[in-house]
Amino acid sequence: MQKKPTLHTSLSPALLHLYDLSNSVVVIIDVFRATSTIASALYNGAKCVIPVDSVPKAIEISRNIDGIAAGERDGMIAEGLQHGNSPLEYTRDFIENKTLVLTTTNGTRLLQMALDKNADTIISGSFPNLSAVCDFLIASGKNVVLGCAGWKDRFNLEDTLFAGAVISRISKQFTIHCDSSLMADTMYAKYKNKMIEYAPKLTHYHRLVERFGLIEDIKFCLTNDVANVLPLYTDGKLVRG
Amino acid sequence: MQKKPTLHTSLSPALLHLYDLSNSVVVIIDVFRATSTIASALYNGAKCVIPVDSVPKAIEISRNIDGIAAGERDGMIAEGLQHGNSPLEYTRDFIENKTLVLTTTNGTRLLQMALDKNADTIISGSFPNLSAVCDFLIASGKNVVLGCAGWKDRFNLEDTLFAGAVISRISKQFTIHCDSSLMADTMYAKYKNKMIEYAPKLTHYHRLVERFGLIEDIKFCLTNDVANVLPLYTDGKLVRG
Repeated sequence: MQKKPTLHTSLSPALLHLYDLSNSVVVIIDVFRATSTIASALYNGAKCVIPVDSVPKAIEISRNIDGIAAGERDGMIAEGLQHGNSPLEYTRDFIENKTLVLTTTNGTRLLQMALDKNADTIISGSFPNLSAVCDFLIASGKNVVLGCAGWKDRFNLEDTLFAGAVISRISKQFTIHCDSSLMADTMYAKYKNKMIEYAPKLTHYHRLVERFGLIEDIKFCLTNDVANVLPLYTDGKLVRG
Repeated sequence: MQKKPTLHTSLSPALLHLYDLSNSVVVIIDVFRATSTIASALYNGAKCVIPVDSVPKAIEISRNIDGIAAGERDGMIAEGLQHGNSPLEYTRDFIENKTLVLTTTNGTRLLQMALDKNADTIISGSFPNLSAVCDFLIASGKNVVLGCAGWKDRFNLEDTLFAGAVISRISKQFTIHCDSSLMADTMYAKYKNKMIEYAPKLTHYHRLVERFGLIEDIKFCLTNDVANVLPLYTDGKLVRG
């Protein structure tokens, strides 16, 4: 019998160094909201999403290619930008055939870390593209590291719940000796049928909803397969894989 | 109404820097097995436990004070030592009125980190001394950081379950905006009545039981209040608080 590939979950960017990425598919997970926004933009026909680590870089690159510079800092549209990190902003009318240059607090930073650590393959995952992610991971046959972006290196539950959603669907195809994955799977099993009701318990929910009133964003970000594309990182861009 | 103190859970030593320890009681948690062993030794009459970060230091200090040098590396009695990290080794016959000089892979390292970060107060916690820990935290009225030692910086479930056990008992006395604590509380609620049955799912269980046959240790380490003392760190030593 062929040996199954391994699967691990990294609960924070500050733990990513513990895992061997060089032979793995790394799934960047930033449920609220970077990776949900990436799925939404690509699903609605964006040519690609270029993740960058600073606002000036987002502005510069978007100017050169006539793209849309967007991003957030601390949950709000970043100073100097006109567009933020809401998946609902990127409707087909607005984003089709355009390039989105995106900078965010946690997700784009984690992606850069995965690059620096020579990840074999990088994709991004969120509930809106859950099935596409699972299908890709099974088809690839490689080891998997589910990388939760968290919030400024703190553990968060929404990214962990997404890791659990993936694990619940694909665990039979992988060898999993990883307490983080076991926990994520257990937490997801408990809350999968009441995600929206559970959301108000999450730290990040209060950051977003109480401060900025983004309840519609939250709902989108917690709904399976409403933007079911595979964002695959290649040559500095996330494209439909 | 007086403002309640805060409570946070740090899921790995690699995340401890995210929390302000300077005004907090830090609970060092290394369920398998350092903090269970510390509770056991103090409960059985050890004068104190001196945690150190290396085997040579353990040998040197124990010689100078006629103490017991003990410790483990990778789950086994460390090379050069006669005594390990099993709570069952430290019976009253053996340890009463003696000083235990202990070095372990994860727990003693985390304690040193808490010291370096100027923790206000440091105690150690484990299921065998759960009630003593909870009573102390409520009485102190200070902020709390539950510090899980994990395994070489990886998240582990047994330390998280102990954090959950503490939270389940004292949450009403604290302000908790912390997804790690919410998760720990949820996981503990799910498994509190079947800890021994659940243990074989844990990564560390296999490290201990399959490699070294320490099932009796595991049972002791998962049993509430069988060594119900409060190990309080003061002047380089853990003493009964």
